Amino acid sequence: MRLWGGRFSEDNDIRVADFTRSTEIDAVLAIDDIRGSIAHVHGLARAGLLTDIEAGELVAGLNGLAAEVEAGSLAWDPALEDVHMNLEAALLERIGSVAGRLHTGRSRNDQVATDLRLWLRRSIDRLDTSIVELERALVDLAGRHSSAVLPGTTHIQPAQPVLLAHHLLAYVEMLERDRGRLADARRRANVSPLGSGALAGAGYPLDRDAVAEELGFDGVTANSLDAVSDRDFVVESLAAAALGMVHLSRLAEEITWWSNPAFGFVRAAESFSTGSSMMPNKRNPDPAELVRGRSALVIGALTSVLALLKGLPLAYQRDLQEDKPPLFAAISTWEASLGVMAGLMTTLEVDEARMRAAADAGYITATAVADALVRRGVPFRVAHHVVGSLVAQAEGAGVGLDAVPDSMIGMALGAAGDETARNLAMDPGIGDLLRAAADLDAALASCDVVGGTAPSRVAAALAAASARLEGA
Amino acid sequence: MRLWGGRFSEDNDIRVADFTRSTEIDAVLAIDDIRGSIAHVHGLARAGLLTDIEAGELVAGLNGLAAEVEAGSLAWDPALEDVHMNLEAALLERIGSVAGRLHTGRSRNDQVATDLRLWLRRSIDRLDTSIVELERALVDLAGRHSSAVLPGTTHIQPAQPVLLAHHLLAYVEMLERDRGRLADARRRANVSPLGSGALAGAGYPLDRDAVAEELGFDGVTANSLDAVSDRDFVVESLAAAALGMVHLSRLAEEITWWSNPAFGFVRAAESFSTGSSMMPNKRNPDPAELVRGRSALVIGALTSVLALLKGLPLAYQRDLQEDKPPLFAAISTWEASLGVMAGLMTTLEVDEARMRAAADAGYITATAVADALVRRGVPFRVAHHVVGSLVAQAEGAGVGLDAVPDSMIGMALGAAGDETARNLAMDPGIGDLLRAAADLDAALASCDVVGGTAPSRVAAALAAASARLEGA
Amino acid sequence: MRLWGGRFSEDNDIRVADFTRSTEIDAVLAIDDIRGSIAHVHGLARAGLLTDIEAGELVAGLNGLAAEVEAGSLAWDPALEDVHMNLEAALLERIGSVAGRLHTGRSRNDQVATDLRLWLRRSIDRLDTSIVELERALVDLAGRHSSAVLPGTTHIQPAQPVLLAHHLLAYVEMLERDRGRLADARRRANVSPLGSGALAGAGYPLDRDAVAEELGFDGVTANSLDAVSDRDFVVESLAAAALGMVHLSRLAEEITWWSNPAFGFVRAAESFSTGSSMMPNKRNPDPAELVRGRSALVIGALTSVLALLKGLPLAYQRDLQEDKPPLFAAISTWEASLGVMAGLMTTLEVDEARMRAAADAGYITATAVADALVRRGVPFRVAHHVVGSLVAQAEGAGVGLDAVPDSMIGMALGAAGDETARNLAMDPGIGDLLRAAADLDAALASCDVVGGTAPSRVAAALAAASARLEGA
Amino acid sequence: MRLWGGRFSEDNDIRVADFTRSTEIDAVLAIDDIRGSIAHVHGLARAGLLTDIEAGELVAGLNGLAAEVEAGSLAWDPALEDVHMNLEAALLERIGSVAGRLHTGRSRNDQVATDLRLWLRRSIDRLDTSIVELERALVDLAGRHSSAVLPGTTHIQPAQPVLLAHHLLAYVEMLERDRGRLADARRRANVSPLGSGALAGAGYPLDRDAVAEELGFDGVTANSLDAVSDRDFVVESLAAAALGMVHLSRLAEEITWWSNPAFGFVRAAESFSTGSSMMPNKRNPDPAELVRGRSALVIGALTSVLALLKGLPLAYQRDLQEDKPPLFAAISTWEASLGVMAGLMTTLEVDEARMRAAADAGYITATAVADALVRRGVPFRVAHHVVGSLVAQAEGAGVGLDAVPDSMIGMALGAAGDETARNLAMDPGIGDLLRAAADLDAALASCDVVGGTAPSRVAAALAAASARLEGA
Repeated sequence: MRLWGGRFSEDNDIRVADFTRSTEIDAVLAIDDIRGSIAHVHGLARAGLLTDIEAGELVAGLNGLAAEVEAGSLAWDPALEDVHMNLEAALLERIGSVAGRLHTGRSRNDQVATDLRLWLRRSIDRLDTSIVELERALVDLAGRHSSAVLPGTTHIQPAQPVLLAHHLLAYVEMLERDRGRLADARRRANVSPLGSGALAGAGYPLDRDAVAEELGFDGVTANSLDAVSDRDFVVESLAAAALGMVHLSRLAEEITWWSNPAFGFVRAAESFSTGSSMMPNKRNPDPAELVRGRSALVIGALTSVLALLKGLPLAYQRDLQEDKPPLFAAISTWEASLGVMAGLMTTLEVDEARMRAAADAGYITATAVADALVRRGVPFRVAHHVVGSLVAQAEGAGVGLDAVPDSMIGMALGAAGDETARNLAMDPGIGDLLRAAADLDAALASCDVVGGTAPSRVAAALAAASARLEGA
Repeated sequence: MRLWGGRFSEDNDIRVADFTRSTEIDAVLAIDDIRGSIAHVHGLARAGLLTDIEAGELVAGLNGLAAEVEAGSLAWDPALEDVHMNLEAALLERIGSVAGRLHTGRSRNDQVATDLRLWLRRSIDRLDTSIVELERALVDLAGRHSSAVLPGTTHIQPAQPVLLAHHLLAYVEMLERDRGRLADARRRANVSPLGSGALAGAGYPLDRDAVAEELGFDGVTANSLDAVSDRDFVVESLAAAALGMVHLSRLAEEITWWSNPAFGFVRAAESFSTGSSMMPNKRNPDPAELVRGRSALVIGALTSVLALLKGLPLAYQRDLQEDKPPLFAAISTWEASLGVMAGLMTTLEVDEARMRAAADAGYITATAVADALVRRGVPFRVAHHVVGSLVAQAEGAGVGLDAVPDSMIGMALGAAGDETARNLAMDPGIGDLLRAAADLDAALASCDVVGGTAPSRVAAALAAASARLEGA
Repeated sequence: MRLWGGRFSEDNDIRVADFTRSTEIDAVLAIDDIRGSIAHVHGLARAGLLTDIEAGELVAGLNGLAAEVEAGSLAWDPALEDVHMNLEAALLERIGSVAGRLHTGRSRNDQVATDLRLWLRRSIDRLDTSIVELERALVDLAGRHSSAVLPGTTHIQPAQPVLLAHHLLAYVEMLERDRGRLADARRRANVSPLGSGALAGAGYPLDRDAVAEELGFDGVTANSLDAVSDRDFVVESLAAAALGMVHLSRLAEEITWWSNPAFGFVRAAESFSTGSSMMPNKRNPDPAELVRGRSALVIGALTSVLALLKGLPLAYQRDLQEDKPPLFAAISTWEASLGVMAGLMTTLEVDEARMRAAADAGYITATAVADALVRRGVPFRVAHHVVGSLVAQAEGAGVGLDAVPDSMIGMALGAAGDETARNLAMDPGIGDLLRAAADLDAALASCDVVGGTAPSRVAAALAAASARLEGA
Repeated sequence: MRLWGGRFSEDNDIRVADFTRSTEIDAVLAIDDIRGSIAHVHGLARAGLLTDIEAGELVAGLNGLAAEVEAGSLAWDPALEDVHMNLEAALLERIGSVAGRLHTGRSRNDQVATDLRLWLRRSIDRLDTSIVELERALVDLAGRHSSAVLPGTTHIQPAQPVLLAHHLLAYVEMLERDRGRLADARRRANVSPLGSGALAGAGYPLDRDAVAEELGFDGVTANSLDAVSDRDFVVESLAAAALGMVHLSRLAEEITWWSNPAFGFVRAAESFSTGSSMMPNKRNPDPAELVRGRSALVIGALTSVLALLKGLPLAYQRDLQEDKPPLFAAISTWEASLGVMAGLMTTLEVDEARMRAAADAGYITATAVADALVRRGVPFRVAHHVVGSLVAQAEGAGVGLDAVPDSMIGMALGAAGDETARNLAMDPGIGDLLRAAADLDAALASCDVVGGTAPSRVAAALAAASARLEGA
């Protein structure tokens, strides 16, 4: 059975049939296709293009197919090209020739666009739930280790101490933005192309708004040529997915390195690790590696669809069929990655002692010491220079900043070429002041601004995140 | 002068200096950098970290630099690494050592993030204006040729007639979505990272909200680690740009083909064409070709930044510097492309007669004929089959569908194996009915749904677009 | 059964199992995996690590599995994670505990690398055959229409006449370069990683060269860390595939536009077209559209793998598993696209008359006219200017260059401000000379250089291509 | 001055002029353009299209321009669109109207293709030198630390000990493949398009081979349509660059992590580090971070050009102009990155003690112990299981594998359910044997295959690499 049978006298080459079929890919649209068809039947009936009896038979047949699809009992025949032909053939078999009236006032072009938007809307809603689940896992982990301290890094080098909870909440921020982008994408996607026909608009007086409302759309597309050729919603979702996966890849990267014994900050639970076939001592955070790796696939998927659309004239060109493999793969990858990362974070073992030990080494509180000087009136650039010299000398002497002797401090201040610094050099309390500022907890507490890592600020942020997630 | 001078005893290798400098790229941030610095000075003064006199000197110095930048009289010294160092050095030279207090409570990391957000906000506002300009050009062109008919295509083949105005309005829809995406990106970008320090939050009691308000931000970032490492706003803007350029590439593609004499639908004005160095007869729509080509560069720019961010641990890593070349190039390409396309469309010569002739050839109204059968009760699939046979016979006989003889119609209906069709075959008016449906204007008028190409619908859409653009 | 069972006390989370399994993807490696295993067994036996009896049992078992795989009777159990675990489990079931000795001196890491190289080598050989098949189709088509003339275009505008055969042979050139790149990729890919162990080299005195030779490799990898983490051969093949698909996309683009009735140059055979579900008059070159669309997917696949590998430390990281989905998809897409394009070109209907008519319109021979002036001593820039003016006047008068009157020619030459031109203006034969040069066939013949479109040159090129393909 | 002046009556819109000009980009082609022009002059003279006097004047003028370009004294006028127009205008100014004869028999299309190939050939030769320089730096570093031991990792987890020299040589392997790809790209790029005209072949009897030979090309392109539209050599070079940069990004990633005090394996020299503006204690391997980041830009550049070429019909379309920004940026990024990485590796400080300590911790020699069991006849899977249990118990007891008591060994072997293992459990020497196998140096030495990390194998590989680099 071929849809365009009336016109052609010759069969397709076997290579063409193989090349053009897509049932394996687009079978996931089956339920959306049926839902769209039911609403379309109602629309045709309202327009007087179907009798009530015909409409009733069609709807009953379509509901039957839906039940078969959900039960997994409908077999897909690849020879029938795609999911739409499969469903049409099945309907014809189930209810006879009235099935032929379903396609009235609808083209494959507006049908596919409708299916894809319905599928995407469902997917976005599931993704939103999965993101919230990961946010909860991060917030819970942060709550369980609310006083754990990390060596915060820039340039992959320890820079300043931060709370682990603060670090985890940074990812909650990213995830909230991901939710925002998905919500925006959903809003723009949630309009009905049904009634746009092949490209010029349906040739029947269909009430497009009523059909759209039945399908839960917020409205209808405003231009038929655009409606059948628009894949902005695919690109926009893929862009959100690529960025969302990049966020996960960053967390995954950190987990893999933190799992290395050089850090030893965390250990994936056995239920979220794999072992090695040759090296029995390994405990590998494979899920994190795969998340990191799969982010690359989603980046490529976005690239693909943009390159696909580039330079395509209006309206529907067959190239558009190829938006589905990258879209479907990317969305399911994102969803699965969110689930795996949520499980990984929920079961993650944290070694607070090793984290704190790493944060307490080196000269990580140098900034806090410089800040203390500035609060005593030393210009920032001077303070920076003084502490820089101090670190160099302390390193040479093998002591920490919290144990640097008064003499070194005095010398560094005196040599700075700044009057305030010179005066401070003679202040008998300056040594104690700077050594106290160099303390790990004091350094943390000193970052006391909105969004800073001071424990009180982080506690407030954690409470706010928890409260927000209550309602999500 | 190197910022980290206190600590190092050895100069950088010349290759490193060459490799790390970015002044040529980031000089475009100068005004944003100065604006951010002025607001930061006010913040420091409010926090008591600067005296009023110091603040006054700094602000005066910064305003002076701004004037120099705007006058183009500030020379950039590439040896000073980047725009920030250049401005700091210039300020020091202009106002002396008080300049050293400017960096208090601010790191290069939150400073750069602030500058980039300010720059992006300005750019988005300019882009929005440029998009509206192109929309106006399209709407005006549509208005000037409101009854021009095109052979609407699918599969690059004529499919159904559509109005040129309908076709142009499809692009207005795309452009409106571009504006929506930019507005969403602006909203998420418009929060202030200032006060986030290097990564842990500033070590001073800064009122971040007040500084943010002065800079026109809608609020402040909620997590310092995220604030200095977040480039979501870059990716989101690039994704909007890539998709926006893809839209332009589609229009550009159509213009290039429509300019080919095989179509002859349009001709770029001489002011928007170029000639050939060897073939004096050419009139090339180069700007359209370049827009199409440059869309590829913007796709690559998006790919670059996603690959850049993938797997980067928190917080600021130097890799992030590399977000700027693709971002700046993509945004300026988009803006220029919008301007050129607006000019191209404004000056485009349209040959309505050739368009109509092309739309009137072939069997482009077949769908309308099938729809007419359906409105007479023939099931869609049957109608489709009947018209398919009819086209095959008409083509063989060398006549159009509007001139197909009754006998052919009767035969096609009779052979369809459908009772309604068989009955219609005997209806004496059926021939006239179908031939009338095959008329070009009748076919256009039959697409009378919301978003359809029926002239009344298109007129309404055009009026709505004009009204909307009044207020934009 | 899990390979790393000895160490772990807890089962994997179900999400992890779902997330990490790859059997659906890597089942295509089954035959290569078995072939590699057999060679490895021989190697172990030679090294005395297996008795002859053990080796015999293993080889028999493996050959049995190969037969099952080829018969399609081996069922893949997704619970067994990947194709390698599936084969190991099946072997254990078939031949008992001796199967456990197969993994001696081999890690999953060198095993997978070996399988992938063997698979790629096979694939490259098949691709080469498919490319040659398409070259033959192009050469045959060129041969069948050896005197057909096209309006050659630049800027999508008619520029100079060219032979269709010349145009088709341009694609043969591209395809030959594709073959060259594949051959280079094959050469670099065809070395054996077996014996590299997990990362450090096998812990047994294996004769890696002998195993490599048995598997048809040209040699062995030189560094074990590189051997298990190198995916250059994947990238290189994907880059060849992306470029190869881009070549096909260019041809596909031309076919789609040439099929539009505005050109009417070609028509895809019914066996290589599809129809429309709503518009019975359509005959769509869908395969060409899909080829064009799928080229975008292959571009994205290449992007994916590059982004995947970026920043990965040595040696094997699990991210590397993700090279397979893009590689397998890209290679099979390329192969199928080559086959479809070969069929499309073989069955393509060419309308030589419409091609020639299009080539004979406009002022497409202007260059030839300018060249004729140059051959008479007029400087090129002057000749260009003269012919440019001539075209403008001829267009105004509605005549072709081959019918432009002597008066116009004289005026244009006289006004050129060049002495030679001025003298020629007075030459009584100049009108005839230029009008003759403006003839379509004369213009073709005048491009008489190596690689030019003069019929004799094209005939020679066609003969050379045919001869080369004889031996391919 | 516009090249196509004869035909047009209207000036270009200012936006078009801005949009189409490219002088800032393509000025790097100046020397190649002049060289190509000189060879073309010789060709025209040989063909009798120029007198010897004209040819002499032209060559002298062109040589003069070359000298100006090399001295940096030729000012580029952006109003003259591109480098070619600039040079033509300058030549006209210098030598008068004979300059107008230069463009005879050459189109901008074959000219640009020639220039780009000449530029690329030069660039490839420079890149090859830079790669060799980095190889030398790696080999020297390996030689200076020939006995340093690293914890080789898989899954970012310590897996087996390897020599640092072995690790560095893995990169030499990658770099050699990069050289191979460049050599292949060079070979395919090094053919002359000159004489192909705009698209159809020059209209004069030019000896293309002689011109090609003068320019050092290996031959001429075989098809004029292909010659002016082929950018395979751009894509192929970009693909080599993207992969080459990915290699560097992997090394850069390792350097950044190894510089973190958790590892403390290496420290960038001060001349190859930067400091922090706020945290005086930092010593950041910025050049490595930038290399890693810039690899993303090169990946995007490749994506851009592939998307650019996709679907472009023959022959030259203006889109092709846009291959230059990504190509030029990618090649110069690669070259600079190679130089910086060479310097970084040359000056890198290595802490062998910390490397060895990290390699000596954990159970990194478990594989070697399992291998020892296998060499005593235990099936691999059993040996793996036994050692897995042993590691679990040793970890519980807090001892290393080289100190695990006989009792544990006996128990693990006895419980394995394998006869050989059970027998070995009773062998009194088995404990010593396994503990000896667990020694770090023994484990290294046991990987004694071609490409393995056994010190003798690495020494041989190092010697071979040194010898090869002698001749490079």
